[in-house]
Amino acid sequence: MNAREMAGLLDLAAPPKWGTARVLAAARNVEDLRRAFLRRVPRAVADFVDGGAEDEVTLRRNREAFARVVLTPRQFQGVAATDLRTELFGCPSSLPVALAPCGAIRVVHAEGELAVARAAAAAGVIYTVPSMGSTTLEEIARAVPPGTPQWFQLYLWRDRGLTRDLVVRAREAGYRAMVVTLDTPVSGARERDIANGMNIPPKLTRAAALDAARHPGWWWRFIQSAPPSFANVTDRTPSAADTTTMQYVAEQFDPGITWDDLSTVLDAWDGPVIAKGVLCAADAVRAVDAGATGIIVSNHGGRQLDRAPATFDVLASVLEAVGDRAEVLLDSGVRRGGDVAAAVALGARGCLVGRPYLYGLGAGGEAGVARMLELLSGELARTLTLMGVATPGELDASFLGAVAEHQL
Amino acid sequence: MNAREMAGLLDLAAPPKWGTARVLAAARNVEDLRRAFLRRVPRAVADFVDGGAEDEVTLRRNREAFARVVLTPRQFQGVAATDLRTELFGCPSSLPVALAPCGAIRVVHAEGELAVARAAAAAGVIYTVPSMGSTTLEEIARAVPPGTPQWFQLYLWRDRGLTRDLVVRAREAGYRAMVVTLDTPVSGARERDIANGMNIPPKLTRAAALDAARHPGWWWRFIQSAPPSFANVTDRTPSAADTTTMQYVAEQFDPGITWDDLSTVLDAWDGPVIAKGVLCAADAVRAVDAGATGIIVSNHGGRQLDRAPATFDVLASVLEAVGDRAEVLLDSGVRRGGDVAAAVALGARGCLVGRPYLYGLGAGGEAGVARMLELLSGELARTLTLMGVATPGELDASFLGAVAEHQL
Amino acid sequence: MNAREMAGLLDLAAPPKWGTARVLAAARNVEDLRRAFLRRVPRAVADFVDGGAEDEVTLRRNREAFARVVLTPRQFQGVAATDLRTELFGCPSSLPVALAPCGAIRVVHAEGELAVARAAAAAGVIYTVPSMGSTTLEEIARAVPPGTPQWFQLYLWRDRGLTRDLVVRAREAGYRAMVVTLDTPVSGARERDIANGMNIPPKLTRAAALDAARHPGWWWRFIQSAPPSFANVTDRTPSAADTTTMQYVAEQFDPGITWDDLSTVLDAWDGPVIAKGVLCAADAVRAVDAGATGIIVSNHGGRQLDRAPATFDVLASVLEAVGDRAEVLLDSGVRRGGDVAAAVALGARGCLVGRPYLYGLGAGGEAGVARMLELLSGELARTLTLMGVATPGELDASFLGAVAEHQL
Amino acid sequence: MNAREMAGLLDLAAPPKWGTARVLAAARNVEDLRRAFLRRVPRAVADFVDGGAEDEVTLRRNREAFARVVLTPRQFQGVAATDLRTELFGCPSSLPVALAPCGAIRVVHAEGELAVARAAAAAGVIYTVPSMGSTTLEEIARAVPPGTPQWFQLYLWRDRGLTRDLVVRAREAGYRAMVVTLDTPVSGARERDIANGMNIPPKLTRAAALDAARHPGWWWRFIQSAPPSFANVTDRTPSAADTTTMQYVAEQFDPGITWDDLSTVLDAWDGPVIAKGVLCAADAVRAVDAGATGIIVSNHGGRQLDRAPATFDVLASVLEAVGDRAEVLLDSGVRRGGDVAAAVALGARGCLVGRPYLYGLGAGGEAGVARMLELLSGELARTLTLMGVATPGELDASFLGAVAEHQL
Repeated sequence: MNAREMAGLLDLAAPPKWGTARVLAAARNVEDLRRAFLRRVPRAVADFVDGGAEDEVTLRRNREAFARVVLTPRQFQGVAATDLRTELFGCPSSLPVALAPCGAIRVVHAEGELAVARAAAAAGVIYTVPSMGSTTLEEIARAVPPGTPQWFQLYLWRDRGLTRDLVVRAREAGYRAMVVTLDTPVSGARERDIANGMNIPPKLTRAAALDAARHPGWWWRFIQSAPPSFANVTDRTPSAADTTTMQYVAEQFDPGITWDDLSTVLDAWDGPVIAKGVLCAADAVRAVDAGATGIIVSNHGGRQLDRAPATFDVLASVLEAVGDRAEVLLDSGVRRGGDVAAAVALGARGCLVGRPYLYGLGAGGEAGVARMLELLSGELARTLTLMGVATPGELDASFLGAVAEHQL
Repeated sequence: MNAREMAGLLDLAAPPKWGTARVLAAARNVEDLRRAFLRRVPRAVADFVDGGAEDEVTLRRNREAFARVVLTPRQFQGVAATDLRTELFGCPSSLPVALAPCGAIRVVHAEGELAVARAAAAAGVIYTVPSMGSTTLEEIARAVPPGTPQWFQLYLWRDRGLTRDLVVRAREAGYRAMVVTLDTPVSGARERDIANGMNIPPKLTRAAALDAARHPGWWWRFIQSAPPSFANVTDRTPSAADTTTMQYVAEQFDPGITWDDLSTVLDAWDGPVIAKGVLCAADAVRAVDAGATGIIVSNHGGRQLDRAPATFDVLASVLEAVGDRAEVLLDSGVRRGGDVAAAVALGARGCLVGRPYLYGLGAGGEAGVARMLELLSGELARTLTLMGVATPGELDASFLGAVAEHQL
Repeated sequence: MNAREMAGLLDLAAPPKWGTARVLAAARNVEDLRRAFLRRVPRAVADFVDGGAEDEVTLRRNREAFARVVLTPRQFQGVAATDLRTELFGCPSSLPVALAPCGAIRVVHAEGELAVARAAAAAGVIYTVPSMGSTTLEEIARAVPPGTPQWFQLYLWRDRGLTRDLVVRAREAGYRAMVVTLDTPVSGARERDIANGMNIPPKLTRAAALDAARHPGWWWRFIQSAPPSFANVTDRTPSAADTTTMQYVAEQFDPGITWDDLSTVLDAWDGPVIAKGVLCAADAVRAVDAGATGIIVSNHGGRQLDRAPATFDVLASVLEAVGDRAEVLLDSGVRRGGDVAAAVALGARGCLVGRPYLYGLGAGGEAGVARMLELLSGELARTLTLMGVATPGELDASFLGAVAEHQL
Repeated sequence: MNAREMAGLLDLAAPPKWGTARVLAAARNVEDLRRAFLRRVPRAVADFVDGGAEDEVTLRRNREAFARVVLTPRQFQGVAATDLRTELFGCPSSLPVALAPCGAIRVVHAEGELAVARAAAAAGVIYTVPSMGSTTLEEIARAVPPGTPQWFQLYLWRDRGLTRDLVVRAREAGYRAMVVTLDTPVSGARERDIANGMNIPPKLTRAAALDAARHPGWWWRFIQSAPPSFANVTDRTPSAADTTTMQYVAEQFDPGITWDDLSTVLDAWDGPVIAKGVLCAADAVRAVDAGATGIIVSNHGGRQLDRAPATFDVLASVLEAVGDRAEVLLDSGVRRGGDVAAAVALGARGCLVGRPYLYGLGAGGEAGVARMLELLSGELARTLTLMGVATPGELDASFLGAVAEHQL
């Protein structure tokens, strides 16, 4: 190697940018965003996001099911370019992925739902706005460019009047679809939250003061902002000092709901109704019979009934039961573009992701959510290209290997 | 966040109560009670409770079988309230769980069997009083409110006269059912106890003196009380200084017992007879033919024959053989409400728990046993609600997912 | 607890005996003997005994197959006493276990083959004397009481005259059966031995001098004795300084052997011929057709072909092929009485154990071998009692649980 | 032991040779060479070689599939000598193994492709020369004795003229077969390389300066040599300072390629055409229909589509589809002679190895590659002997055990 050659190899680049921009740029995948998130938020918040019910058996099953997937590539298929665009319940989406409803996320990052809404809109991805959000549904609707499709997530509260009011407000705010959560007759046992004494909003205890030294950014933003609350229902909830999420939710979740209640409440809604929380063919049929135009196969990210099946493991049976009568999406456990490809190959229209955008949000606010979508989109595009298809719609079960079928 | 908002989040609550009450209140599940138990009892006692036979293969299998269970929820079933009450062999029970017979438990906590009996009675749960208890069966019967149903556990001793005496005493003391242990022709090889030199009662050795510094509460209660002995048979056993559990048990266990012996001995009993220790259909049939009105599928908590099957794995075959002729309960490995739900869904009438109440007992005496039952009951109620049923009786195999069936 | 009671619990027993006797008495199972063995022999010797071929896949498979075994007990079978006695190839044995041939074991303990022979004879168990032993076959035969049945293990050497001489000598020394090793066309790749530079006899290197400080007992006995050599063939082998086991074995193992060679060599023998190293039905048939009266299903303890199947996994197919024409024993991986019970339940006449007696030998010489047999015998007796049978002969496949069958 | 005996055991051998020769001689298997490689190359180079795509699921699957293989030996088959020689696409090979194409390997060791070519030629093994090599194809062809068979690996570049030029150059340089890589429509996501900022050639950063102290040999050779570049296409690629492998590859890989393109390009070639990267029967049929005379079942060593199946798991289906119309080789995950035996027993003509020779190269240059081939050849010969066959051609599926079949 002579001097000229060696000079050519010298890398005198300026030191990399510090801070959030660098962390996000360096993230290679959702797991990297998760690591950044874990460094940046208090432990109780990390557990609030990452935890599942009881022994977290279902939480692990969701990932294990995807880990068993075998993707079979086809070579030399002439896929000069991929096109990930699709339509989910009549709404255009830049990729077959939507953002799942996650409540109270201003505890993850003070910018909360607004950051998520803006990042989703910019990326052309649909955000399912939670009824238990820490920002009102109207504010979220106003935060995005006019015409941006958004969905609204609804719990059928014990207070049916409140429920109906939310439906009306969502309709007036222009939401395009109503995602009704089925799987919360009661709250799941999130044992990490119990151990941490996790409340919404978090209490300013002595332990919190100590934690502030380790996560100054989070705490600085936290005390700069209004305390997170359940903004859509603030006028009906007690003051933050007197109750906790668990208590409020325990009181509002109504185990007495029936499929008939769904019909009644939805008289006030004329768009698509998507039933979220189906884990067997029988419930899929009941939901469609009750008027749902879509199904989200979901175990609530492993946060409700522990030992519930992995969603990928029951997807085929749900599709067989209602695949011709309803669009079916898959939720819970999606972390990679390849997970999306697998679900779509089995017949899902697309996937919802929840924790991935919370990781991005905690790691870097709106830019972190955007980075998550960029990574997921890039992974899906590369996966499709490597599999030899140009669009998600070309995938079918023949792209899933025999080992996966054996293990279903 | 303004001052008023921040003040609302300040948590100036008094420091939490120290000691047992706080530990029990903080326990989120049986495993938390186990951790508290492990901190509070000497190592030899912990191993005496936690250990199994030989390589503990069966001990692990019991839990692995439950870990494979898939529970399929049904949504929007209108389950306004759950009712866990059931009847076990004619006795009312507040949940489909009874307490298994565990001998010599005053080594776990000086309050021993009396604490367990009181906690069970208060919770409306049946306690199976052990013939090898460290408190007499009459004392235990007197410790609970009149009318409280209790069962008595019987070994068919080599000394048949002693055995018959116990049956008569149990009848006179008002026990409602006789649980006959089948699986102890000899004692299992509890290798942890051998390594620890575990005796009943524990020896006051130099090592014990050192341990006292680490577990002062246990030792204080221990030397304050009479030494644990096998109280029902004290007049027939040698003094504590001269023999050990292993020796005494080895002498009294009788491998020569046959099903005919069961018939003979039980002439003195006219209530239900429950055969505990069945692990195959053939034995279930033999037990019922020999007059048993109930079956407990049990591998003695993995403490007798190592490599015996997990009880959950053989439950279906036992039910198929005798399900229409006998009530069937499942023992061994139950730690969560979801375990109970799975056993009941497969067809068991209910479950027995052993170690869970010993964990509670070691962690906090009577209050610890009560807390264990409270946790288990709460878990079962929430699991049923999340599954969409109001009572255990509504569960059937259709609530168990395909993966579980595949793995049975 | 009053003073009298407390005094009764005081354990003023003299401190336990130190040394070998205590270690052996404290051993609860073969694994405990192994731990003692590992502490007492140089690392290279430990690896020589414990190691397998290449990646040790087969070594692990042997144990994994037994770990999957499900033993189903039957209760109340009236088994007042167990009787483990059996007959193996016409020789009485106190339990269905014989000692496998292991070469050069004076490296494990200076007492070597003589200690093993005496312990086996005292326990009424058959010792398969190795042709590659470090003691002559005649010395070993003379070390036991007249009439003690012993078997001789034979390699079909490249030097056929030497082979035939060994057969004649074994006959004249009174050996009862000839165990012909099939699976050594070449030596397996024992990579631990290669890394350790393991030779027979071990070299007195600088590293050995350092090791002597850690294992003084072993080294003291080693330099007190004659150097281990292949005693049966000393007059034909080069001096110890010039060659190594690997070299000598590599030269004498003959990959050109055919089943015809077996017939020819065995003209000089009129007792039972047992083919050791069968792993498929086809070889079992060939061996019996070639005149073998018995089969040992063996993968040489995982020391020859790595990735060969676990012996327990192929036992059923071998039995199906030749079970009515030959006695079948199982070798490789047996460590517990329950392993023996499982093999016998599947149809084997009994098992061979190799490493277990080397662990005993290394841990305590002849007394260690005796202890191993005592432990194994005790485990088997207790296992049979817990399973509800009085003799090994009563076991059949119905005692093996469904899970095990599924996994075969 | 007397003085003479003890003297015979004294090992006064000179201390072993230090350095590369000793390390290579001491290597017992490919994994030992890998350990030496890891010690000798910078971390980024180690990851460049060892890493796979995304979560490295496929990387692990390749090894797990081989770990499940059951090889069934047959005894006393009279295999006096083994003969590993075979013919691969008309070229003689001393064993059924060829060297896979690996680009830019002068980053592993400055001697790069020339060292590999010489070691392969000396061992009588075919080297598949990469089009992305860091040495020109002509130099490599000249580095070996005339008549040495070599294959050339071809990407179908976006620049079809460049591609055709390479075909012409390969033909003129005397290459015997053309291996066309199918599975690179885009580059896989090698996340380790992204984290390390791995470039071709490596940048001389501050971190590199620190690393030089730990791997002086590598750095000394590196700065002594010309910087690695893509030598075959140097005149068309930008200078090393301006671009990176990822960028250049991303630009040249063409996802638009179809099977028709293969036909067109290969008009310039009249030797065997081998399609590398097939993972399903359908692609195997397409490749043969498009004119390929051979198939390499490969997932690019787990470096392209993560979650692609293990090659061993799909080999049987490819053979069933085209086994009578094309020679089939297996690539990806081969580390042991037993892996080769398994692939050949299932019907493959032979295997390709990639990382194994890079480990050898990094550990010791040309001598290291030679040592790897010596180890693999020795393992295969011993495995065949232990299985009872003299040549790879005698193997068939009957040598693969039932467990393996069950798990396929």
